[in-house]
Amino acid sequence: MKSKSSAPASAHPKSKEKESATERWLSYRPEIRVLDCTIRDGGLMNNHHFEDRVVKAVYDACVAGGIDYMEIGYRASSKNIKVGEFGCWKYCHEEDIRRIVGDNPSNLKLSIMADAERCDYKEDIPKKKDSVVDLIRVACYINQIPVALDMVKDARDKGYETTVNLMAVTTVNDRELNEGLEMLTQSGADAIYVVDSFGALYSEQVQHLVRKYLHYAKAGGMEVGMHAHNNLQLAYANTVEAIILGANYLDATLAGLGRGAGNCPMELLLGFLRNPKYKLQPVLRCVDNVIEPMRKDLQWGFDLPYMLTGLYNQHPRAAIKFKALPEKGDIGGFYDSILAGV
Amino acid sequence: MKSKSSAPASAHPKSKEKESATERWLSYRPEIRVLDCTIRDGGLMNNHHFEDRVVKAVYDACVAGGIDYMEIGYRASSKNIKVGEFGCWKYCHEEDIRRIVGDNPSNLKLSIMADAERCDYKEDIPKKKDSVVDLIRVACYINQIPVALDMVKDARDKGYETTVNLMAVTTVNDRELNEGLEMLTQSGADAIYVVDSFGALYSEQVQHLVRKYLHYAKAGGMEVGMHAHNNLQLAYANTVEAIILGANYLDATLAGLGRGAGNCPMELLLGFLRNPKYKLQPVLRCVDNVIEPMRKDLQWGFDLPYMLTGLYNQHPRAAIKFKALPEKGDIGGFYDSILAGV
Repeated sequence: MKSKSSAPASAHPKSKEKESATERWLSYRPEIRVLDCTIRDGGLMNNHHFEDRVVKAVYDACVAGGIDYMEIGYRASSKNIKVGEFGCWKYCHEEDIRRIVGDNPSNLKLSIMADAERCDYKEDIPKKKDSVVDLIRVACYINQIPVALDMVKDARDKGYETTVNLMAVTTVNDRELNEGLEMLTQSGADAIYVVDSFGALYSEQVQHLVRKYLHYAKAGGMEVGMHAHNNLQLAYANTVEAIILGANYLDATLAGLGRGAGNCPMELLLGFLRNPKYKLQPVLRCVDNVIEPMRKDLQWGFDLPYMLTGLYNQHPRAAIKFKALPEKGDIGGFYDSILAGV
Repeated sequence: MKSKSSAPASAHPKSKEKESATERWLSYRPEIRVLDCTIRDGGLMNNHHFEDRVVKAVYDACVAGGIDYMEIGYRASSKNIKVGEFGCWKYCHEEDIRRIVGDNPSNLKLSIMADAERCDYKEDIPKKKDSVVDLIRVACYINQIPVALDMVKDARDKGYETTVNLMAVTTVNDRELNEGLEMLTQSGADAIYVVDSFGALYSEQVQHLVRKYLHYAKAGGMEVGMHAHNNLQLAYANTVEAIILGANYLDATLAGLGRGAGNCPMELLLGFLRNPKYKLQPVLRCVDNVIEPMRKDLQWGFDLPYMLTGLYNQHPRAAIKFKALPEKGDIGGFYDSILAGV
């Protein structure tokens, strides 16, 4: 039945440009790994206060959907944090994860994200044999790469898979990026991610970055990942672009739930991928019955304020502030303020 | 200020692949024409019953935004139609248009759409000198091209600009499309449009089609246009793709208002284009103050049912029916029904 979907010829090339037409139409890339980060990125919209039934529903949908990884939250330092300020998915204590997944008797691997300089990783990350987590994703800004390298080493030594998610790449100049990626080739991480934190990338820039990352990744025996935001309604388009170029780690979230304008919607991504292990049905039901009902409260997704911060390559915080005004603000005035800040 | 926008290097090439980097960054294509079809395509969501204040607000935003054309509705036969079933923007009588625009003392040109076999064009379209309309857009399916050719001839003879909008192109096989486009090269129309009625195109297919259309268009001295729908959140991405390849007639609507999942959002398109004559500010305000408040009633825009009809290259009617059920239906069952129909 899938054969009549309108998916295009070269959606699933094997990272090469010249495979045969038959191969392009009928094959898929087994190297592709889909990572659901609904609870992790979505947690930025509710201070990580998801009910257990929501986390369990996402877990169940990921297992049934044949998704490769589920990122269940952050592991963050709890020093100097007021008790109750954040929900448990900011810390992902082992007992909280196991309350949802037990010993995770499934093919779904579990991931947590650790921000450079916000995680006491040496103490707070146990050895893999004592954890239900499979993958540690280290998030860092360009200047934090030395810290990230130590975090990757620590996690690898403890037995985990690892990735490095280099945030806000649209703010980094090309020369510094080359130097940063050069350092990461020695990290031993399984993948390095193009992270469009501000949702500011157009397709041509995705091409430039993914090709660059692939160049360095190959030197380090790593894969390349894509993490997109939807400020310009391009999160899915840019993820498809990255797939075509050869990115194999793909982030998406149910209904696009994530910070600000949100992420690449998982339902679109699974509709595009050809590997029969992925099942759309359970994802559709979870989106419709569990995730969408939270939209009114959490208010993620494309809108004009987030569009404007994306268009001008800015952090969404100005948009978040504008949207939280007690009375509806003037979008024209907000546009002026964004322009003034450029 | 615009210079710090994150718009990419080759967003505005002059339909060539090898212009210099400076030219790519600083220039724009003066041949590009932006056409707003908010009231025309949006009219498919409310049987063309827009209040005058809404039509006037869109007109004012188009004028202030420097938009090239505004399509104000259809011109359709009113034979055998129950009075009151449709609003006046299904017919666009001259006096209705003039009630909004007067003699249109602006640089904005006005357009109406005439569907092949649904318009008594010989009688219902007056000579251009007696009309405030500038452009007649003839919409047809592939089998209606002979009728469309006669409609274009009629409109040209009366003094109008013309385009042919060949609908539902994703359902036409390549050989028939070539023959149809060959016929259109003789039409004398100003442009022929790639129309993704079902919102089913991916970027690679856009590339294939726009290149094909350009081949035939050049032979006929015509331009190529792009009209996208947002079922897969690709309306804007596909429009950008078409621009890069050389399409110069671009359809968009305020807030994407249009049938089903809607169209390419005008606010995104203007944010991307470099020509200083386009102004984003008045468009943002109209979207925020006039268009978005109608969303709750008109219910256009991306959602799961429209995603599924787009994914399987189907008319949105099944999704419209599913969304109109008296009680919320099961999206999983709807997915099964779409698959069964493929």
